[in-house]
Amino acid sequence: MNYETPQFFHVMQYAAAADRDVIDMVSGNPDWEPPTAIRTGLSEYADANASEFQYPPSDGLQELREEIAARRTVDSDRVIVTNGTGEAKYLGMARALDGDTGDEVVLIDPVYPYYPGKVSMLGGETTLVGAAGDGGLDTEATCEAIGHDTALVVLNTPNNPTGAVYDIEAVRAVVETAADHDALVVVDEVYDHFDFSGSFESALTLDADNVIVTSGVSKSMAITGFRVGYAVFPPALIEAAKTRHMLVNVTTSRPAQQAVYRAYRETDPDYYAAARDRLAGRIESFTEALDAAGAEYTTPDGAFYVLARFDGFPGTMANVKTLIDEAGVAGMPGSTFGTARSDWLRFALVTPRATEAAERLVDYFGSR
Amino acid sequence: MNYETPQFFHVMQYAAAADRDVIDMVSGNPDWEPPTAIRTGLSEYADANASEFQYPPSDGLQELREEIAARRTVDSDRVIVTNGTGEAKYLGMARALDGDTGDEVVLIDPVYPYYPGKVSMLGGETTLVGAAGDGGLDTEATCEAIGHDTALVVLNTPNNPTGAVYDIEAVRAVVETAADHDALVVVDEVYDHFDFSGSFESALTLDADNVIVTSGVSKSMAITGFRVGYAVFPPALIEAAKTRHMLVNVTTSRPAQQAVYRAYRETDPDYYAAARDRLAGRIESFTEALDAAGAEYTTPDGAFYVLARFDGFPGTMANVKTLIDEAGVAGMPGSTFGTARSDWLRFALVTPRATEAAERLVDYFGSR
Repeated sequence: MNYETPQFFHVMQYAAAADRDVIDMVSGNPDWEPPTAIRTGLSEYADANASEFQYPPSDGLQELREEIAARRTVDSDRVIVTNGTGEAKYLGMARALDGDTGDEVVLIDPVYPYYPGKVSMLGGETTLVGAAGDGGLDTEATCEAIGHDTALVVLNTPNNPTGAVYDIEAVRAVVETAADHDALVVVDEVYDHFDFSGSFESALTLDADNVIVTSGVSKSMAITGFRVGYAVFPPALIEAAKTRHMLVNVTTSRPAQQAVYRAYRETDPDYYAAARDRLAGRIESFTEALDAAGAEYTTPDGAFYVLARFDGFPGTMANVKTLIDEAGVAGMPGSTFGTARSDWLRFALVTPRATEAAERLVDYFGSR
Repeated sequence: MNYETPQFFHVMQYAAAADRDVIDMVSGNPDWEPPTAIRTGLSEYADANASEFQYPPSDGLQELREEIAARRTVDSDRVIVTNGTGEAKYLGMARALDGDTGDEVVLIDPVYPYYPGKVSMLGGETTLVGAAGDGGLDTEATCEAIGHDTALVVLNTPNNPTGAVYDIEAVRAVVETAADHDALVVVDEVYDHFDFSGSFESALTLDADNVIVTSGVSKSMAITGFRVGYAVFPPALIEAAKTRHMLVNVTTSRPAQQAVYRAYRETDPDYYAAARDRLAGRIESFTEALDAAGAEYTTPDGAFYVLARFDGFPGTMANVKTLIDEAGVAGMPGSTFGTARSDWLRFALVTPRATEAAERLVDYFGSR
């Protein structure tokens, strides 16, 4: 399996070179405004004393760590501010594979393609376990896959690409089975602000000493380019993670940390609710059109992706290109996300043209 | 050996808690203004379209990579923008230890303490080779240390802490010997703008296919907290490094990249010359005072550190604390930098109070 970026890049380049208008539903870049305080925070920081342009603490600005800790109801000593959620996951996964508890990593299929990429870079071996039919955790199969050689299980809820929000009891079962085998569990909660079901519960509520939770503000504050994420480690694992963070990155970029701290303080809950409502509306109109196009599809409980399967039109790269050329809609091939959904296409709903895209799909599949 | 940050942190905390005024000569944070374009660049970026707040290319903004490539006279395909020079070194060192050419890493003593820290994190074994008496490369000893199991040699010029600017012919000899043993050489040139000797030549001029050069703008633009660095890889090694960068960090923070790009374009050479002149003046008055205090010391050809040895007062942590309490001057113990200079103290000249600090040292050692 290839990593996601080259595949994304490949599709986006193809779409950009197409001889027609193409609606981009490829990548997970929010298309809405960031909180106002991101702009004012950055702008005021530009005038700060030069001493504020120097190294922040390695694990992040103290006030930002405290803000995150308060929101996640954990001790701030457990928080590291990372270069986006990507680094947070890397630190968690590296911690698991640094130990002597094995080199197997259990991932859920469909899988976010960076996960197996990181496992391979860190010298681990991936075992894929299929998700349940609804895209949620197949608790029994996942627990059965955890064995003597398992060092780590990686979960992602709300899930990209299935849109499932995992039942906390299913997460608990996996965490307890992992603990029985001295394995860690990294839970990627970067879509925590995009829960349409009202059922999302963070794995931090389990208060388990083998759980590392990662998240960030890339999606929630619509600033994927700022690279502000964090990891919450159990107390016994935090020091080694801080050392690795220091040795890899020293610390993360201060202008971005400063702007995010300000946005945490000044952004009204309505901001996040409006983004959720906007997405819920897009999901509704997009899936209605998929109905009209005769497609099978997922209705996400969380995150902002829809998986769709069109009869006789599997989710290959060739078909993705056909859809760009003939329908003017760019999605991602399901084969990018492991084997479980290789017949499907993934559409990111982070475009104001989602409804228009759906209409194009109806037209295209109606006339085929 | 411990890593630098905890030691730095320890000394800085001790100094901050002292019951008197203390001049901070501990860490390498420039104390002068960044280029004006850093501020205007950040401030204008704060008003940019929200789409510019999303992911830049994984290897950095194209225009920034091209600017760096033009300045270093290399193809932009060889450049990765990293989260500071720290990540650049991590990528280079990881590339060497990822191969099957051995796990030994040759480092020069005195040594910047992150280097052995990174080696150990990456599963390598450090061999320390003493620097020459003047702090430059001991070419013969270094080449002799390179053997069958050597994967990597790490050099740093201009050097922290000795202030030596390596003779390019000495670097060439090490690079050629390393090539004979299939070893890579990472050359950390982060102090490239602080050459008082006029003799600095980048290892890129060797055009060798086993050399990785790392640098950044933390020191040259006085923005250690922005985390904008870069690595220049040989063409055959760049793709694997880009993959690791993507899997660890995805990409680096865009506000900082944007401000630095603008500062590259708009900053006059006078800015860098003024910083150099300021430091040269401080070095002169500081070392004059050290003469008066009867100390042995280094006069740096580059970077901004002075090593000093006071008779009967070795560079231990205990003596560093004594100097804070009794002289009101905070330096770093030489023992932080390996074994070669453990009798010495390191003073960072990035304070406008360098002359005042020197006078305090004269008074203290005069009355002892």
